[in-house]
Amino acid sequence: MIIVADNLRVTLPALGRAVERLDPGPIREIASACMDAGAQAIDINSGPLSRCPEEKMSFLVRTVRETVDLPIVLDTANPRAMAAGLAAGGPKATINGVSLEPERLKRILPLARQYDCDIIGYLLGPDGHVPAHAVGRMEAAVALFKEIQAAGIPPERLIVDPIVAPLAWQDGNRQNMAVLEVIRTLPDLLGFPVRTIAGLSNLTTGAPGPDTRRRYQCAFLPMLVSAGISMILLNVLDPDIMRVAGSSQRITDTMVFSWQ
Amino acid sequence: MIIVADNLRVTLPALGRAVERLDPGPIREIASACMDAGAQAIDINSGPLSRCPEEKMSFLVRTVRETVDLPIVLDTANPRAMAAGLAAGGPKATINGVSLEPERLKRILPLARQYDCDIIGYLLGPDGHVPAHAVGRMEAAVALFKEIQAAGIPPERLIVDPIVAPLAWQDGNRQNMAVLEVIRTLPDLLGFPVRTIAGLSNLTTGAPGPDTRRRYQCAFLPMLVSAGISMILLNVLDPDIMRVAGSSQRITDTMVFSWQ
Repeated sequence: MIIVADNLRVTLPALGRAVERLDPGPIREIASACMDAGAQAIDINSGPLSRCPEEKMSFLVRTVRETVDLPIVLDTANPRAMAAGLAAGGPKATINGVSLEPERLKRILPLARQYDCDIIGYLLGPDGHVPAHAVGRMEAAVALFKEIQAAGIPPERLIVDPIVAPLAWQDGNRQNMAVLEVIRTLPDLLGFPVRTIAGLSNLTTGAPGPDTRRRYQCAFLPMLVSAGISMILLNVLDPDIMRVAGSSQRITDTMVFSWQ
Repeated sequence: MIIVADNLRVTLPALGRAVERLDPGPIREIASACMDAGAQAIDINSGPLSRCPEEKMSFLVRTVRETVDLPIVLDTANPRAMAAGLAAGGPKATINGVSLEPERLKRILPLARQYDCDIIGYLLGPDGHVPAHAVGRMEAAVALFKEIQAAGIPPERLIVDPIVAPLAWQDGNRQNMAVLEVIRTLPDLLGFPVRTIAGLSNLTTGAPGPDTRRRYQCAFLPMLVSAGISMILLNVLDPDIMRVAGSSQRITDTMVFSWQ
């Protein structure tokens, strides 16, 4: 299991200002802290980037690349920013991401082929909504898989994100049980060891405070790990969450176990 | 999911002395603390009880019954103690337990039929050893199920304990992945909603200290819950473990979610 830092978000005010001023300092600081905390990859969540998306995404990617030697995940819904990030990113950049929304398929899939890189696919309907039931997620996975193949991208490039639901949603727990089911059964359904990814913090959107957030994330994380998730996007700067990630990994690992 | 306190163990020196002297004080204290901490049942682990097993088990059961209004689980390998505990226990006592070991089948199964009570079945081979592979556990489950039926006990009385393996065992993690698999698939395999139970503290036998024990138990517990376990035997007096149990339960529950 690969731990991806979700800490580099341009929606955070300090990072938003740094990007506006093209000031690398705060970005370097976060990227270094993530590596020191044990991140095995960094998600660069650029936010909307309404003005000069290319320049800003290139700046972000170059700054992270110069600071840490970790794979990067380019997290933007803006195709121009994605193209610029891939051009600046060099090898081991992952596209985050595509869905069955026609506009995304049309503008993002060609980039995955051009750069021959991994691409995260969200299990959403063509309307961008989360499917109401587990079967809808499975159908979305099959449809995404077909789109990837039709676009000439090797299917092994697809990393499926079944979309963790906020517990505060009316049917959040049922949705998350479907998420675990999808992670467990997808390799059998698609007939190859398809990788999966999940964003842990989605779970606690709307939670009343940091203790509650941590508490539920620390309980759901082992469930994701034991379901066989390949990558988890999480707050690597929270030592409690990182400890649970490490313990869960050692429990489920096939390597020889050692405490700590 | 039912939380069963594993705290009442006569192998603890203070409780051992209390049982020797037939002094109800320390037993009442533990039983009350377990109920206050949120236990939904109490496992009465009597230890070997080499002298006067009937008298001591009856005393234990009566003392717990007089103190708390919770279902009890009679945890002894001594058939005489089990018989005495059931006689003293009244309704809602569960036998813990039976396995394919011929001596246990012969002496424990008739008690389950006589008292019409639930009975925990360990997935061990007839030699008392843990099966080396997942398939061995499945075979043990099927064999136990047949023995239960052959003894005239309704199959719904069986609660299967797949035996959590110490992580320190050479193949502990692989064994525990088999445990999760058994919990998930057993209802399909046996064709009815068969209940399962697991003892969480087995996981960390031999761990270097209480922090390490807590840490690994807190990571494995959500895995058991998301696999669909019916009952967990755990240290209800550890608030961290109880918090994880509660969060895991709320995440996987089909009831309307609420934080806390």
